[in-house]
Amino acid sequence: MTRRLIRLTCLAAFSALAIGIGEAAEKPLGFFAASRDAEARAEKVLLETATPDGARRSLAALTEEPHVAGTPQEKRVADYVRSRFAEMGLDVDVVRYEAFLNHPKSVSLRLIEPVEMELSLREEPIDVDKDSTPRGMFPAFHGYGASGRAEGQVLYANYGTRADFERLARLGLSPEGRIVLVRYGQVFRGLKIKEAQDRGAAGVLIYSDPADDGYMKGDVYPDGPMRPPSAIQRGSVQFLSLGPGDPSTPGYASTAHAKRVPRERMEGVPRIPSLPIAYGEAEKILRRLGGPRVPDEWQGGLPFSYHLGPGGAAVAMDVQMDEGLKPIYDVIARIPGAVQPDRLVILGNHRDAWTHGAVDPNSGTASMLETARGLAAALKAGWKPRRTILLASWDAEEYGLVGSTEWAEDHARELASNAVAYLNLDAAVTGPDLDVSGVPSLRDLAVEAAGDVAEPRKGGTVGSAWETRERSAWASRAPVELAAPDPPFEMRLDPLGSGSDYTAFLDHLGIASLDFSFSGPYGVYHSVYDNFRWSSRFGDPEFVYHAAAARYYGLVAMRLASAEVLPLRFGSYARPLREDLDALRREARRKVRTPAEPGSTEKPAIDPDFTPVLDALAELGRAGEEADRTAARVVEAGDDQGAHALSGALAQLERAFLEEAGLPRRPWFRHLLVAPGTTTGYAAWPFPGLNQAIEDRDPALFEAESRRVVIALRRAAQKLHEAAASAR
Amino acid sequence: MTRRLIRLTCLAAFSALAIGIGEAAEKPLGFFAASRDAEARAEKVLLETATPDGARRSLAALTEEPHVAGTPQEKRVADYVRSRFAEMGLDVDVVRYEAFLNHPKSVSLRLIEPVEMELSLREEPIDVDKDSTPRGMFPAFHGYGASGRAEGQVLYANYGTRADFERLARLGLSPEGRIVLVRYGQVFRGLKIKEAQDRGAAGVLIYSDPADDGYMKGDVYPDGPMRPPSAIQRGSVQFLSLGPGDPSTPGYASTAHAKRVPRERMEGVPRIPSLPIAYGEAEKILRRLGGPRVPDEWQGGLPFSYHLGPGGAAVAMDVQMDEGLKPIYDVIARIPGAVQPDRLVILGNHRDAWTHGAVDPNSGTASMLETARGLAAALKAGWKPRRTILLASWDAEEYGLVGSTEWAEDHARELASNAVAYLNLDAAVTGPDLDVSGVPSLRDLAVEAAGDVAEPRKGGTVGSAWETRERSAWASRAPVELAAPDPPFEMRLDPLGSGSDYTAFLDHLGIASLDFSFSGPYGVYHSVYDNFRWSSRFGDPEFVYHAAAARYYGLVAMRLASAEVLPLRFGSYARPLREDLDALRREARRKVRTPAEPGSTEKPAIDPDFTPVLDALAELGRAGEEADRTAARVVEAGDDQGAHALSGALAQLERAFLEEAGLPRRPWFRHLLVAPGTTTGYAAWPFPGLNQAIEDRDPALFEAESRRVVIALRRAAQKLHEAAASAR
Repeated sequence: MTRRLIRLTCLAAFSALAIGIGEAAEKPLGFFAASRDAEARAEKVLLETATPDGARRSLAALTEEPHVAGTPQEKRVADYVRSRFAEMGLDVDVVRYEAFLNHPKSVSLRLIEPVEMELSLREEPIDVDKDSTPRGMFPAFHGYGASGRAEGQVLYANYGTRADFERLARLGLSPEGRIVLVRYGQVFRGLKIKEAQDRGAAGVLIYSDPADDGYMKGDVYPDGPMRPPSAIQRGSVQFLSLGPGDPSTPGYASTAHAKRVPRERMEGVPRIPSLPIAYGEAEKILRRLGGPRVPDEWQGGLPFSYHLGPGGAAVAMDVQMDEGLKPIYDVIARIPGAVQPDRLVILGNHRDAWTHGAVDPNSGTASMLETARGLAAALKAGWKPRRTILLASWDAEEYGLVGSTEWAEDHARELASNAVAYLNLDAAVTGPDLDVSGVPSLRDLAVEAAGDVAEPRKGGTVGSAWETRERSAWASRAPVELAAPDPPFEMRLDPLGSGSDYTAFLDHLGIASLDFSFSGPYGVYHSVYDNFRWSSRFGDPEFVYHAAAARYYGLVAMRLASAEVLPLRFGSYARPLREDLDALRREARRKVRTPAEPGSTEKPAIDPDFTPVLDALAELGRAGEEADRTAARVVEAGDDQGAHALSGALAQLERAFLEEAGLPRRPWFRHLLVAPGTTTGYAAWPFPGLNQAIEDRDPALFEAESRRVVIALRRAAQKLHEAAASAR
Repeated sequence: MTRRLIRLTCLAAFSALAIGIGEAAEKPLGFFAASRDAEARAEKVLLETATPDGARRSLAALTEEPHVAGTPQEKRVADYVRSRFAEMGLDVDVVRYEAFLNHPKSVSLRLIEPVEMELSLREEPIDVDKDSTPRGMFPAFHGYGASGRAEGQVLYANYGTRADFERLARLGLSPEGRIVLVRYGQVFRGLKIKEAQDRGAAGVLIYSDPADDGYMKGDVYPDGPMRPPSAIQRGSVQFLSLGPGDPSTPGYASTAHAKRVPRERMEGVPRIPSLPIAYGEAEKILRRLGGPRVPDEWQGGLPFSYHLGPGGAAVAMDVQMDEGLKPIYDVIARIPGAVQPDRLVILGNHRDAWTHGAVDPNSGTASMLETARGLAAALKAGWKPRRTILLASWDAEEYGLVGSTEWAEDHARELASNAVAYLNLDAAVTGPDLDVSGVPSLRDLAVEAAGDVAEPRKGGTVGSAWETRERSAWASRAPVELAAPDPPFEMRLDPLGSGSDYTAFLDHLGIASLDFSFSGPYGVYHSVYDNFRWSSRFGDPEFVYHAAAARYYGLVAMRLASAEVLPLRFGSYARPLREDLDALRREARRKVRTPAEPGSTEKPAIDPDFTPVLDALAELGRAGEEADRTAARVVEAGDDQGAHALSGALAQLERAFLEEAGLPRRPWFRHLLVAPGTTTGYAAWPFPGLNQAIEDRDPALFEAESRRVVIALRRAAQKLHEAAASAR
């Protein structure tokens, strides 16, 4: 599925010292002087082996047919990936789970007022694109969408966020018994259904508005990369922010004999029917809607003034699903570590797609296969990684990160002990711009490695291009505090929300995680036009960014696998957290100063005390700097014993932020510093407990969560002190 | 013309103590206890005399025909206003000036590539609206637009701001020899032509994009209040921010024998032809444009992806103007003061319109006539204002504030000595929301009077509704500084930019000025649909806001005319200036942190020292508070002599901010604290010299301007100290 690029401006308070790429004495990060040459030789093999042409050939093979999880087509793609790993000489395992999935049996949507009209649930064929008419393609449906019939007056609810429904309520409009029409964007689609369902809606239609990824953002396919009028965004409607994975096995693996929750008792999947539709069809409803004119910000890009309804248009929908357990296949290749084979650096990318998936996810699969070729070549050339590398090709990610979540739950104990880092790649390439999300301890490594990958078209490195863009974004977005001097710019990774396979590793197991992509204009997300022709015309015609992704992915993995001192650095951990906390403080302040809307029954906004968390963060910052100094000294001295002790501690450090009891009302999420927002799904909430308390206007919850965060931050600081001491 | 509602968010840093409406002991502001009853009785007559029905009848009469300045129709409307004043028993003068104006002789616009097609320069008739097909109506043209023929490839330049043209240049696209197509909005239309002309464009087309005031903002006329596809925004293309008024008599009055600058030597009017067009016609060009896709923010609301050109579409335009001196008529009624007849409170509203002008300006004229009826009735009931009130109905405002500017230049000396305040009303009513702009010294009076006018539909007062809206806007827009506690909310007036008749009074002569309107969705600005039907269907069907405007206008005028201590208060003068200065400081900081764009030849951003201005502002604040305390004491004591001395000083205070030499490169503008932006035209630049220096990246200019501002602020503080001393 991939995290759609929704950056909350309030979170984008980038700042601080840009770290000097390529100037560090200790380079690559964590490598003893004696091992740097060998590493450089191995990396050279990787960089030369991963090529645009290799990625192009893999992508063509991977995207021959649509391959939805649980279908024979997807099994064929799993077999292809397995055979590719095998032919590279890698050990490979296929792990099968039995996952609860749905496929559509029959779907229909009719306008019944003011005229009778069948609305299309398929994309239009395009002459120049053979892949626009695939055989055996499912019509429009939602992963984990419910079976059911519904009919009623249509009510337009903008993006279908909680705030949108609250605004409708203030306008006196209720979704009850109605078909709610919402547009894609801003929050994960499952949460739109949840908000509508919680308010009594009979059914939900989600359409792609041309203002969001259609003609208002660029020329539409086949003339350009953006969404044409008939393109449908499929996707899962699981209530992702409550927990991903197979809803029939919450918290444990979907093995053959696992105990199952029946459909009617599953949490986190809708009970009312829903369908995704194209803007060409949505227009036929929206144009006819009566009722009041929408609030200004709710207007989309169709060429008329939007109205809220109800009245003017009614529809009937009938959605019948084939639901049940279907086999899914995680394909996992293993490169054993020479020194610490139990330690795991895990690379993961999903393979299943709603359609052909040329971008999502198979641009990532094609890149990962090139990474694998590069690593295999380096092995043949004599490279011996200290730690074990796993390359995982996940299945059924699109339904709710199922393949990765079930595997992570299956191996929870081993991962908790041994995992060093998880590196994710989903929709890897839609254009030239590198975006990297991840935990702050991976920042230095991520920036360093990006500085070692050539920018294929503009010259320089992908790292320098990344820094230039980040610096501009920081200049315009970071708030100006007149009372303080401007903090210097510093590179940072975006916080990880959800919507891809790092979720179980980071949020459930506390494993340091990273996700990246090369991005550009991309409007055909989850439509039949996300195919090889699109990628080779618009996304990356020369496949050079696929190759860059493969090289970058490989470099980060090799360094994590081979550096004597694990390249996780904590001196820069506290600063982005401080920025995120400041954003939250601003948000809280704004809520306090905003007068209640007339007729609102909202509780008063809370004005909480952030001092304890600020103090604990400062302590974490100092401890991180101490640990970094120790790491530098150990590297400088080539101190094997110190490196071993320090690496062991650093690998475990992220686990200090876990809380066994989990977050408020969603125990599966255990990381206290980051989680998907309960009202966003994709976008990250830093300090999710504090954020929840501010959203809920609950001062007692804030105090409780603040205490838990302070304990975790202090625990991490303590572990850093101990790590530094252990290496002395 | 009226200032279109463009609020720069950086200027909207409202905050501070909301002043307690209705709780002041001294109420109305400046009135001795002994005179309050008489004032209340007179005000009651005003409030009861000004009625919705009166406004409706006046508006119907005023808008019978289109009445462009310099036409016989406009002379007929002048006669109507004169006779109305006369029949109320007021002294009335008609002041004639000979103004350089243009009317279109012939205009045409043709698409010549890729197909030949005549483009329409007239609005479409609408069956239900008899006024949509007026006899003798001019086709589309621009006031002060140049005659000429031009043809060439079309280049799209977004809003045609300086920043937009600079962006085109960075993309390697030059307007030279091309027809530039820009959309209305963001800056005054004349500046769009100036920017294009300065870069060698052959001609300019300005169209109204549906994203700005068409269907994306609401239903279009005749079904709703917004702009339909054929509606044309006429208007002046004078380079307003360099100076308004008749361009043949810059800085002096257009009397019969005045020396004239010939057309070819006039500054501040275009030399290249331009035309306004409707979006229905612009679409025929834009759809065909080739070249690169526009930057995201340049996309408008037409249903396709916009391209920049050139290539794909070429047009030919032919504009022939009838130019020359034409008579214009300012109609001025006088209510002589009983105590200080030389002191002037001036109410002004323009009368000329591009079409019928039901909103712009005759909603203001109809309201002012109701105000006049109210004042006349109060006079008959025995009211005796201390000071003289003038009611001015200006002509030729639409061309460039001509009638008011010529009159102000004609009476400059008298006004400098005697004017107490200028109260402007332009397009008075498009909906229910009161917006007030003005100098900070009129804040207390403006808020107090608004609290004494009933909100006709929602209950409460227009003041309480105004405060509620301002408070919400402040909550979301004012920056949050974490290092400081949140300042309390305080009402403030928006700073005055330009685009209406207060300009000569405030910016040239330093007379405390106010402007207000009741606003709502209004998309038919300067089109043939701005007619009586529109106002009575959408703007104010019951005419209750016309009556509210008349009552508010009258109350403010009566209090200024009769209070023993002139109700100008300076204790709150410094705070909005400080907010505006802080916004400028933030802007400067952002420029400093923003890295130069690749290929930019811009000078480095300046990082100036604001301390001297901040210190001088603080001093002004203290002096203002002292003067306010003195005023309160004088009122409390009923001290006639003190009131006389203090009022004399307060009336002159705004003049302290004038600088004889004027602003950088535009000497006609002499107010150092506020002016229209040189790159905005309508929107205000607080501290225009400092703003200019930051825009120009000129540290020496900043230092010089900072010195002038500090001197002016200190001079004002000194005058306030003296005023306080004089009343002791």
